[in-house]
Amino acid sequence: MSFKEKLRSVIDAKKSHLCIGLDLNPEYFPKSVLSSDDPFSDFNRQIIENTEDITSVYKLNLAFYEALGHDCHRVIKETLAMIPDDALTIADAKRGDIGTSSEMYAKAIFTEYGFDAITVSPYMGFDSLKPFADFSDKGVFSLVLTSNSGAKDFQYLNTESGKPLYIEVAEKLSVWNENENFGMVLGATHISELKAALEVAPNLPCLIPGVGNQGGDAAGVRDAFRDIGNELFIVNSSRGIIYASNGDDFASEARAAAITLRDSLI
Amino acid sequence: MSFKEKLRSVIDAKKSHLCIGLDLNPEYFPKSVLSSDDPFSDFNRQIIENTEDITSVYKLNLAFYEALGHDCHRVIKETLAMIPDDALTIADAKRGDIGTSSEMYAKAIFTEYGFDAITVSPYMGFDSLKPFADFSDKGVFSLVLTSNSGAKDFQYLNTESGKPLYIEVAEKLSVWNENENFGMVLGATHISELKAALEVAPNLPCLIPGVGNQGGDAAGVRDAFRDIGNELFIVNSSRGIIYASNGDDFASEARAAAITLRDSLI
Repeated sequence: MSFKEKLRSVIDAKKSHLCIGLDLNPEYFPKSVLSSDDPFSDFNRQIIENTEDITSVYKLNLAFYEALGHDCHRVIKETLAMIPDDALTIADAKRGDIGTSSEMYAKAIFTEYGFDAITVSPYMGFDSLKPFADFSDKGVFSLVLTSNSGAKDFQYLNTESGKPLYIEVAEKLSVWNENENFGMVLGATHISELKAALEVAPNLPCLIPGVGNQGGDAAGVRDAFRDIGNELFIVNSSRGIIYASNGDDFASEARAAAITLRDSLI
Repeated sequence: MSFKEKLRSVIDAKKSHLCIGLDLNPEYFPKSVLSSDDPFSDFNRQIIENTEDITSVYKLNLAFYEALGHDCHRVIKETLAMIPDDALTIADAKRGDIGTSSEMYAKAIFTEYGFDAITVSPYMGFDSLKPFADFSDKGVFSLVLTSNSGAKDFQYLNTESGKPLYIEVAEKLSVWNENENFGMVLGATHISELKAALEVAPNLPCLIPGVGNQGGDAAGVRDAFRDIGNELFIVNSSRGIIYASNGDDFASEARAAAITLRDSLI
């Protein structure tokens, strides 16, 4: 089954566009988790067990795992093993390198860890992304328009054709999409620009960060996708869900926050 | 000592602009290494011992280490421990994410591993790079003009100001350079464009990939930097040096290839 079909299937089955970002940060762990033998896996296990029936995709931002040092590999493997087969997994890695190096990243993410999808950075162009897309059953979400303020530095620059760089990227992804497994990362903090990207690439699956702590507009995102007739969008929240409480009720509070976001996207 | 001062000091002391890329790939290992108890560290040890007196910088492309799976963390740590203090180390990671995530990457690369510098991708703008640059004694080499063919997809796009994107990036790096620790990645495969980037950012340290297997022009690079009066450039070769031979003479052949490249840069 292609990644697009898998994504459609999981969204349909769960009636959920929710993606939870498992951004592990012990600074925000409740005391009960910090005192366990294995706080990292314990935290993720409780979050996953309390949200798996309502969550279509779990996203692991690798930055938070790499910061764990020698625990990185083990905790990623253990976390992926906890996620049920009826949810998809994204390595939020923002990789992109010359071909031989991207091949190695693809091997690490798809073969070694077994993620269903990855985020990549388009700056180095097609040959830097192709080794990921060559895994035709995996999803490759390229940064297009990001949710941070620095998005304005380059992504908004108009090219001489009069289009901003992020539109050039969206157009290219549509053209490069031979295996039908490219997707876009579009920040929820810029709704009108998100709509502009959807107009030039209406059929690509989209990963939408930036709701919750970053201030993005969940309902605005939902309406933009509904208007264009694209159901293949997932909206990520990380801290807003998993650190909704830092008390012993963190897992039930995470579930409550997850349900609120899920419901705002239907 | 600032990263720039350290780089100047090591280049002066060794009279070498040579950077060796330790792109570990067991497919290219000689049989004698493959049969050792620890092929990865054994290979790097032999390369480093045979080149450390002539090499200013060692670069580890993290893609090749992440592909090692559970050995990744150990092999990076062991490799960094082998590199003498009179050489610098770059994590070729091409990272760049929203602020809180980039902070975690910076923690992993600078605090956990102890690299002297990192490569980053500029697509997400200043706030995605600042957490790296906040380590004021560390170097932050941003992709500007890369050595692969895909560089043409976006980096060459002219903006409405009539300048290509890579020039916009070079200009911005100069402006953002408050801690004087930004540098540029400029591919040796595009000499006239490399010169154009140097003209707008003449004082930034530069990491130059693309010689050797990628076909870049070492002497052309040297002349471009000489003309602009910037001595803070390092030219990387990976496969062309470390896999110069896949026989038992691999370490001495690596040394020979390293000396040839070093001499062509003086």
